[in-house]
Amino acid sequence: MLQSKLIGDTKKEWPSEASLKSHGLLLKGGYIKQMASGIFTLMPLGKKVIAKIENIIREEMNKIGSQEILMPLVATKKLWDMSGRYDSVGSELLRFKDRTKADMVLSMTHEEATVFSMTNDATSYQKYPFSVYQIQTKFRDEARSRGGLIRVREFTMKDAYSFHTSTESLDKEYDKFFEAYNRIYDRVGIPEVIAVASDTGMMGGSGAHEYMLLCDAGEDKIVKCKNCDYSANMEVAYTAKYDTFNLVEEKLEKISTPNIKTIEDLVKFTGKENTNILKAVIYDRLDTNQTVIVFIRADREVNETKLRNLLRVDDEKLVPKTEREDDKILYGFVGPINLNIENSIVIYDSSLENEKSLIAGANEKDYHYTGVNISRDVGNVEYHDVSKVTKDDYCPKCHKKSLDISNGIEVGNIFKLGDKYTKAMSMTYVDENGNIKNPIMGCYGIGIGRLMASVLEARATEKCVNWPASIAPFDIHICPLDYDKNEQIKNISDKLYSDFESLGYDVLLDDRQKSAGVKFADSDLIGAPIRIVVSKRNIADNLLEIKTIDDEQNQMIDVNDVIKFVQEKMKGWKK
Amino acid sequence: MLQSKLIGDTKKEWPSEASLKSHGLLLKGGYIKQMASGIFTLMPLGKKVIAKIENIIREEMNKIGSQEILMPLVATKKLWDMSGRYDSVGSELLRFKDRTKADMVLSMTHEEATVFSMTNDATSYQKYPFSVYQIQTKFRDEARSRGGLIRVREFTMKDAYSFHTSTESLDKEYDKFFEAYNRIYDRVGIPEVIAVASDTGMMGGSGAHEYMLLCDAGEDKIVKCKNCDYSANMEVAYTAKYDTFNLVEEKLEKISTPNIKTIEDLVKFTGKENTNILKAVIYDRLDTNQTVIVFIRADREVNETKLRNLLRVDDEKLVPKTEREDDKILYGFVGPINLNIENSIVIYDSSLENEKSLIAGANEKDYHYTGVNISRDVGNVEYHDVSKVTKDDYCPKCHKKSLDISNGIEVGNIFKLGDKYTKAMSMTYVDENGNIKNPIMGCYGIGIGRLMASVLEARATEKCVNWPASIAPFDIHICPLDYDKNEQIKNISDKLYSDFESLGYDVLLDDRQKSAGVKFADSDLIGAPIRIVVSKRNIADNLLEIKTIDDEQNQMIDVNDVIKFVQEKMKGWKK
Repeated sequence: MLQSKLIGDTKKEWPSEASLKSHGLLLKGGYIKQMASGIFTLMPLGKKVIAKIENIIREEMNKIGSQEILMPLVATKKLWDMSGRYDSVGSELLRFKDRTKADMVLSMTHEEATVFSMTNDATSYQKYPFSVYQIQTKFRDEARSRGGLIRVREFTMKDAYSFHTSTESLDKEYDKFFEAYNRIYDRVGIPEVIAVASDTGMMGGSGAHEYMLLCDAGEDKIVKCKNCDYSANMEVAYTAKYDTFNLVEEKLEKISTPNIKTIEDLVKFTGKENTNILKAVIYDRLDTNQTVIVFIRADREVNETKLRNLLRVDDEKLVPKTEREDDKILYGFVGPINLNIENSIVIYDSSLENEKSLIAGANEKDYHYTGVNISRDVGNVEYHDVSKVTKDDYCPKCHKKSLDISNGIEVGNIFKLGDKYTKAMSMTYVDENGNIKNPIMGCYGIGIGRLMASVLEARATEKCVNWPASIAPFDIHICPLDYDKNEQIKNISDKLYSDFESLGYDVLLDDRQKSAGVKFADSDLIGAPIRIVVSKRNIADNLLEIKTIDDEQNQMIDVNDVIKFVQEKMKGWKK
Repeated sequence: MLQSKLIGDTKKEWPSEASLKSHGLLLKGGYIKQMASGIFTLMPLGKKVIAKIENIIREEMNKIGSQEILMPLVATKKLWDMSGRYDSVGSELLRFKDRTKADMVLSMTHEEATVFSMTNDATSYQKYPFSVYQIQTKFRDEARSRGGLIRVREFTMKDAYSFHTSTESLDKEYDKFFEAYNRIYDRVGIPEVIAVASDTGMMGGSGAHEYMLLCDAGEDKIVKCKNCDYSANMEVAYTAKYDTFNLVEEKLEKISTPNIKTIEDLVKFTGKENTNILKAVIYDRLDTNQTVIVFIRADREVNETKLRNLLRVDDEKLVPKTEREDDKILYGFVGPINLNIENSIVIYDSSLENEKSLIAGANEKDYHYTGVNISRDVGNVEYHDVSKVTKDDYCPKCHKKSLDISNGIEVGNIFKLGDKYTKAMSMTYVDENGNIKNPIMGCYGIGIGRLMASVLEARATEKCVNWPASIAPFDIHICPLDYDKNEQIKNISDKLYSDFESLGYDVLLDDRQKSAGVKFADSDLIGAPIRIVVSKRNIADNLLEIKTIDDEQNQMIDVNDVIKFVQEKMKGWKK
């Protein structure tokens, strides 16, 4: 197409609202336009890239035999009640009433809808295994949308669901999706994406992986072993063992600690390390109105995902305790000895298990104990792993102190759901022996807008998008200088344009009256893998200057060889 | 694919809930599944047909230079306030609050979103004209969804918007879309669709056409001239003139009509025709709390669209008056003489204009007047055309009594919007002379699910879908008999399957253990344009029985000629 007609102008300045590189580039390049918090329009360039990503995903889904369907975005409360998620999911599930005052939701995921859609069509074991997928709009009412397309409220997702009569069959399908996902990331230009063990979260089920692009822009923390292949989301990562710092048993002693409420103050006051201190972290559990007290060694932090999973409490129903004057809790002095807080649950983290002597709150204003030995002073307690892994911990697989923690963007996830949904929703099939059973399920998601943004986070600079040829909005960008003034340049450019178009390439011709600098800067923001510069100087020698995505050096190609050159290049790239 | 794996079983019985042929076929064939009132899942067969329709539409939109974008479904109240439609559109616009209590809507159309998206990217006249389109989910909270995919609440729509600096440019673009739409209907198999003049409704603007498929299932009434090319939606159709029935002026006389409240009773009581009677039709106008009284000759009906347009009152704000004891209206006896209803608007329909003597209510309980002459007894009044056209009226174009009224399904619409939205939302450009102006717009919609259903209404029988080759879910259906028992049949079928697949055709192989009757009935519901039957008897003679969509007669083709036969057929069909 002619660039003068392309809708979605590039901006001269880096957008001030951009928090991430991808956000800035997508705005600056005219790919997206923000409509509201976390809600965007895809402008023509953005839509072109997304369409190419969708086609790659569609091809890979079809290749593994998944059947495309389309489920509605709007669902009834009744449907979500069948799984119990209408109540259990937090306010990111957008609930509303229709004109008849019926309760509805905007679907953020489609397990219920899929099970409902499939129930009467898969009643015999002979139909199994099978999987379906859709590429569809979802809405998740994020409290904090951020980073352009990285975390939005309305988004397009590819979500697939598989159905099985055995865990072996699920495992096999899971592997097929695993491989398909790797091919997808490879084809869109980020083969470095890794799969890490992850939390099953609101999905439930028996196992899950997230696909992570490791980069600074990520908001997930990924734990990876430098020595073996262990990798996991921080939410579920654990250490093989804990170092123990307090091996000598001391006697219990109460000390005056006037107004010493923080670990920092206590370290200063006692001259000890935080490894010598037991700290109390206090939460409100909203579903049961209980207080949750976590005792953990003070050098460590509570992993709230692990804590939620341990307590089987839903997202948003476990929140850090807010101090209130009337709640009778002696903040800063809570400890395991003489603890007496009404309606509470007490959790001991595994980091405390072998410690023989610790400093801890005395449950008395301005007093702490030293020499606390839990088994001696409190009795037999159960320990649970609810602490965040640190880089100084031990890899749970190879047991070496070789962990590394990076930021990651989640660009996909796969879950083994088991029979959670089919059982709750009474989806059944008749097996070989005439028995009625619930199928088991897997589910497999990729957020498509986020994937596009992630490709930029991985490949782009602040000036140049560097799309791979497979998803670039155009194949070829013809940039003539003085197109409007020099007839020869116009003729050559127009001929190249029509020749390449008729060969089936998607070509952009910069017919605008702009300086070379502006044209090249815009071209870097559009990122066609081949840029052909038509200039007076080179045309005199019958040459075109060509810049390709795989070569830092520009090349001079004879006008008569340019089609062959481009065809060869494209053959090597497209996949 | 193998039919045993296809998700979406055919049903044996005609679905009892189906009100229309297309609804029944889509359910029976396993194309769709109902999730809630007016909300459906597209199963694999349905999704395949829809995808082919979408591709045809996309090709035709790209061909006329429209650029594809994707706008969000969820929009803010703020955006819809900019055009005033947040308040003016009725409860089919679904309004809700997000987690921050901000007012939001589910978009049923995207004029506001498009203008907002384009505003900063089309600031110079040089960018014009241009158009953008999307294929996207919409939600319209219909009070009465019906007929499967004919009238739903959640639906996929292609909507396009064009922007211009002159009405000539808009007219030109409108013609381009007009032609593109004709090509689309032709390619999806319903070339008989006609364009009719239509109401601009909630869109506003200066002109509009609807594309109508004339068929019994339609809920629109279409007025078409049998003599010339006049055609219009009943909502905007008019007659060239009115026959006059009461030419002799009589004297005004009050008669006792005890408890005679209906036109029927009055006809019986007086022995006159309804053409001799003036009736009063009464409405509540909710936005101003006024009573609207329409006087019209009793043989005619009020066209509420015309009435709404005349009064400039929004949908849902003008409703038939509900009788209340305290409203002081003498129902059955309202007439133009001595009329005294508080806070009311009185409209005289053009059908009364030349009548010299009528029977009318006397505004007194149990009394009517005879011999009513409006100009003599009431004075000079203005007449307005607010009546529904009948088949006995005069074509407004050729003035012949040659009108025909049919049912039609609206399968598309195009509107000239003018500057309604760009003005309200301050979208401007700088023209050649440096003046700041508002662009003018056109908009162009096609509901994609409804289009699929309409193809069935036009082409299908209750047993056979009869898809055209261009949108059939599969190209070729191989139906072997005894596939599971006869090795030769299995081998031939498998070879055909892989041969056709490798040639790029979309092939369905019926590998199920079913009777010939079941297989053929299912095949009729799937509707591949080519069905190849592999049977023991024919195979003995090296023959295959082939049924094609364009031939009532089945043909016997030699096994070795079948590929060539199919390729020839397909070449002729695909467009």
